[in-house]
Amino acid sequence: MPRIKIIVAYVGTRYNGWQIQTNGTSIQEELERCIARVNSARVRVHGSGRTDAGVHATAQTAHFDVSESKAPIPWTRALNSMLPKDIRVLHHRVTDTKFHARFSATGKRYTYTFWTDPRFVLPQRLPFVWAIRSPDPAAMDRAASFLIGTHDFASFQNAGTPVADTVRTIRSITRGPGAHPGEWVYTFEANGFLKQMVRNLAGLLHAAGQGKISPAAVPDILAAADRRAAPFTAPPQGLSMDRVFYPEEYDDHGLVFGSVP
Amino acid sequence: MPRIKIIVAYVGTRYNGWQIQTNGTSIQEELERCIARVNSARVRVHGSGRTDAGVHATAQTAHFDVSESKAPIPWTRALNSMLPKDIRVLHHRVTDTKFHARFSATGKRYTYTFWTDPRFVLPQRLPFVWAIRSPDPAAMDRAASFLIGTHDFASFQNAGTPVADTVRTIRSITRGPGAHPGEWVYTFEANGFLKQMVRNLAGLLHAAGQGKISPAAVPDILAAADRRAAPFTAPPQGLSMDRVFYPEEYDDHGLVFGSVP
Repeated sequence: MPRIKIIVAYVGTRYNGWQIQTNGTSIQEELERCIARVNSARVRVHGSGRTDAGVHATAQTAHFDVSESKAPIPWTRALNSMLPKDIRVLHHRVTDTKFHARFSATGKRYTYTFWTDPRFVLPQRLPFVWAIRSPDPAAMDRAASFLIGTHDFASFQNAGTPVADTVRTIRSITRGPGAHPGEWVYTFEANGFLKQMVRNLAGLLHAAGQGKISPAAVPDILAAADRRAAPFTAPPQGLSMDRVFYPEEYDDHGLVFGSVP
Repeated sequence: MPRIKIIVAYVGTRYNGWQIQTNGTSIQEELERCIARVNSARVRVHGSGRTDAGVHATAQTAHFDVSESKAPIPWTRALNSMLPKDIRVLHHRVTDTKFHARFSATGKRYTYTFWTDPRFVLPQRLPFVWAIRSPDPAAMDRAASFLIGTHDFASFQNAGTPVADTVRTIRSITRGPGAHPGEWVYTFEANGFLKQMVRNLAGLLHAAGQGKISPAAVPDILAAADRRAAPFTAPPQGLSMDRVFYPEEYDDHGLVFGSVP
């Protein structure tokens, strides 16, 4: 059976997250609704993972199955003609059931954007940043350095979707400039993330940047393996799903984003 | 009488432009409504100039008059607590009637943002860019070079608000990078602009970039002094009012935006 793989970008502000909910509209719901209009049958869209209400994506990846006769549909164009403007399909390809948006993923990358100018947030950037007051970048970077590597991240997992194994490997955390001066973009790459883990890590960086915790305390926070040992969860709007990594034969990121790393 | 000078940023997407209209909501209307709530009297807000429906601003400047007793109100904070999130007052100061947001202005700066990646526009950037197909930057820059200086810009003035003198001096047009790879930001600085002039200039750059006109034809287009001689008006969403220049004693731009030029 043909399986359609899509790369989807969205502004999460208006949505109740990726996953279909009983209350509010979800990205998954919008996609399934539009697919049904061309596919004549309602199919399930499987994402690489959920994103919370208010969280954005530049490259969420998902798949759905269609009959042979529907495979040649120009899915990217067809779906974009029906989707709301704040959800865009950037790419599609026909693949097969050996590919699975979630289980084939070998890693993920998220960005978290802080607005650090103490004076104001431009309304143009308000839906995409967390404004924090004059943080110390050296303290934030030092706190981040203790997170890199293979650790039990139980202290950074929120309740709701318990997993048996809370060990993950963070490959890198880097800080770069953002769309406007005064924005800092932290990029987190790992083999996988626990529920709300990036927002909890961003909350940790914030606490370090404000001097509320010492960066040197991070190993103890990890060792506690207790959510209560770590600072509070950062708000959703700073977070964006930036990339899902797949084995080379399924990797379309370069095709879509060109030389952008 | 105390006069309050404010610097205002807004996302124009939801608004029918700066100026109060009989249909739709305007930025001016929102400001006057909120000022009336603290001021007890309705006052007129005078902007440095209008912006069209869908046009943004990072530093529109305006003024309004209040009684002595109301001058000490923390206007920035007070207005932001009542305004919609897509309109933010970035700064206010108490001045006097010698200052006028429109008549004291010595120049203005606008940015126009093109999305030049032929493949897709991220929904995060869709409200802020005009997507044009693989333009030639050298042709656009060359066309821009003919616009710099003192010219009769009658060919770039749209109907609706006729002015006696259509001569303006463009001090500079520069191209820089935008918030995302593939965005080009053209910055236009002049002693003043005619109605929809920047959007008409952006339309000219687009035509040059697409090879629809030769950059060398720009002097003839200027000389024609006829709107029909120039290409069509660029859409509003790429445009943003970036700065209003005032004599030094009224210039708060550095205070608000720091070292950002």
